[in-house]
Amino acid sequence: MALIVQKFGGTSVADPDKIKAVALRVMELSKQGNQMVVVLSAMAGETNRLVDLAHKMQAIPDQREMDVLLSIGEQATVALFAMAVKEAGLDAVSLLGDQVKISTDSMHTKARIKSINADLIKRHLNDGKIVVVAGFQGVSESGDITTLGRGGSDTTAVALAAALAADQCEIFTDVEGVYTTDPNICPSARKIDRITYDEMLELASLGAKVLDIRSVGLAKRYKVPIHVRSTFTNTQGTWVVEEDKIMESMLVSGVTYNKNEARITFSRVPDTPGIASRIFNPISDAGIVVDMIIQNTRAGDMTDMTFTVPKSDYERAMKIMQKIAEDIGAESVTGDTKIAKVSIVGVGMRNHSGIATTMFHILSRENINIMMISTSEIKISCVIEEKYTELAVRALHDAFELDKANLPLEES
Amino acid sequence: MALIVQKFGGTSVADPDKIKAVALRVMELSKQGNQMVVVLSAMAGETNRLVDLAHKMQAIPDQREMDVLLSIGEQATVALFAMAVKEAGLDAVSLLGDQVKISTDSMHTKARIKSINADLIKRHLNDGKIVVVAGFQGVSESGDITTLGRGGSDTTAVALAAALAADQCEIFTDVEGVYTTDPNICPSARKIDRITYDEMLELASLGAKVLDIRSVGLAKRYKVPIHVRSTFTNTQGTWVVEEDKIMESMLVSGVTYNKNEARITFSRVPDTPGIASRIFNPISDAGIVVDMIIQNTRAGDMTDMTFTVPKSDYERAMKIMQKIAEDIGAESVTGDTKIAKVSIVGVGMRNHSGIATTMFHILSRENINIMMISTSEIKISCVIEEKYTELAVRALHDAFELDKANLPLEES
Repeated sequence: MALIVQKFGGTSVADPDKIKAVALRVMELSKQGNQMVVVLSAMAGETNRLVDLAHKMQAIPDQREMDVLLSIGEQATVALFAMAVKEAGLDAVSLLGDQVKISTDSMHTKARIKSINADLIKRHLNDGKIVVVAGFQGVSESGDITTLGRGGSDTTAVALAAALAADQCEIFTDVEGVYTTDPNICPSARKIDRITYDEMLELASLGAKVLDIRSVGLAKRYKVPIHVRSTFTNTQGTWVVEEDKIMESMLVSGVTYNKNEARITFSRVPDTPGIASRIFNPISDAGIVVDMIIQNTRAGDMTDMTFTVPKSDYERAMKIMQKIAEDIGAESVTGDTKIAKVSIVGVGMRNHSGIATTMFHILSRENINIMMISTSEIKISCVIEEKYTELAVRALHDAFELDKANLPLEES
Repeated sequence: MALIVQKFGGTSVADPDKIKAVALRVMELSKQGNQMVVVLSAMAGETNRLVDLAHKMQAIPDQREMDVLLSIGEQATVALFAMAVKEAGLDAVSLLGDQVKISTDSMHTKARIKSINADLIKRHLNDGKIVVVAGFQGVSESGDITTLGRGGSDTTAVALAAALAADQCEIFTDVEGVYTTDPNICPSARKIDRITYDEMLELASLGAKVLDIRSVGLAKRYKVPIHVRSTFTNTQGTWVVEEDKIMESMLVSGVTYNKNEARITFSRVPDTPGIASRIFNPISDAGIVVDMIIQNTRAGDMTDMTFTVPKSDYERAMKIMQKIAEDIGAESVTGDTKIAKVSIVGVGMRNHSGIATTMFHILSRENINIMMISTSEIKISCVIEEKYTELAVRALHDAFELDKANLPLEES
């Protein structure tokens, strides 16, 4: 008998029939003697509908009230799900964030979980009930409803699994698992069987949308094994686990890309101390998140500074930067929105040199110019012209032989 | 400066524009220096939508989960309303039943309020906020969400007014107030300016749907003056108050009718002790509510027994009764669904004889046969053939001169 936490996203519970199907699936495991905790999102489309409603009331909706409004999406799903279980003959009980209780800070619409009281859930489990928890929501110290931001239900599931010391945490979604790259771009993309938390963190932050990045961080901290899999099939998905649980580490686990950033370049900036903070403080004050930053030293105490911002913030960032450029005496500010970031991720890189060189070589062989490079222990990212994205992804996927199943390092 | 509780029903907050209009109306009074507590229902149609959803999941939806589901209707309205107030420049905060907190028993879908903690509301009022409370919902001792049944938002408003010792409790609805009778039947029906709690209780239970009957009982107990009025105009509505607050009591305050009942008659039942309980126990066990009961003694230790049940329970009740009839040796059981109950209500009756005689006389003058009669201190009801309903209502309304404004008893 195991204690299993299962999370189903909005597309998995999009309508009454889908909710019933998921309920039956959960009940199978319950009948086999497992204790089941189910975390649900709002029905697909519901959160957007509520956000639209809020914007009809207030140009910039009040964040506290936004959370009161948004939390009803999950509240509806858990009640309907519990009814479906009861109709099919087992016992179930729905619990909201404040009933559990899932304590968070008071950063409305993007709150962070501080603690979870597992007592009530355990009591219901011991009473033989399937416990159905509303994802995405918590309660602040002052008793206000909070929400955890998009993807927050994943975080709820992992946090519950940690608090309950669950044997498994399964995240059900509308894809089969985590792929070596986007199958829409690269038909030979392969589902990954096992991946480390660190690799998943890099993949998640680089735009692979199967799993919310905060939930991966949480899973890593509390060593919760996550199984990402499809609601609509019974095949095994991808296990996200500790590094020592993977015997055969891949050199490169996946190739990702991101077309949502834009580049801004200062040319010929006087290279004086504090120049970076004079450029980046105003950007940060405006709430704009800078991703990559690259500085090249030129001759004559001059320097070039290039960085990327989200495309949606590009216009605003450029306006701020044009003003700064005058203040600091930069020769020019130029920008480019037609860029993409292509990255390779893999824990195997840590102990193998030459991976970066291989990546640069492959891109150059395809006549793709690299504009920016950034690296971490287990990731190499290159900024290239947007139009080459698909070509680059396929070439890298091929070159690192990601279409071949779990190739152990020893044989590479 | 007054503390005012205002309740707006589903048609008053049916869409974003209507919510904004109501918010502006509440803000007017706030700007004049009043402390405002607003109680809101779900948007019109929303509760029915949720009930339909529940029935798609479970033939007889689980009552606890039903309450979890239903309570989201009011939760949405209060969040949107608070946003509307903030957008228009004042401060507001939404509160749910469990946040207030409104403690109830655990009779899900028809819970009763046990106590209300007014502290949090007072704190927010003193901070200069408009407090927006979700109607219809509370929290049980075990921390489960409960709902108060249809019309429950009226009860929430009156209970809050009592707990806060509010100066006024205004119930906004889609009609101008309480009328002497149904204006659709009787064009000379007149809006009543003031009516006693007892009269309103009789009117509410007889089918005048402007105000939930439980809220009137609560208002009477805690002496909360209620002002029933229209959301869509500024005219004064009807005040429901203590009897000694009304200087000029009317002999008859209103004429009501109810077409939702059916009649069942046992003929020639042996008149032995315990016969009534042998008839009515099985009915009550089946959850059927009996309204009027009339027993006539016949010669020879035989008796006739007639009673009314809701039309929707008629078939079920007849089946049960046919079986009982055999057991107790009744000659026959007959029934009639084409009946109506017409009633006159007025505290003035208490001290004036002859009102009943006048009523019977008027009906007989119109050739309307009276099948059953029942009376209380301030009410006389007659069951007649359904087809005469409108004629009877108009004749009684005319005869008791209800079209004339507040006629004092002294002049009658």
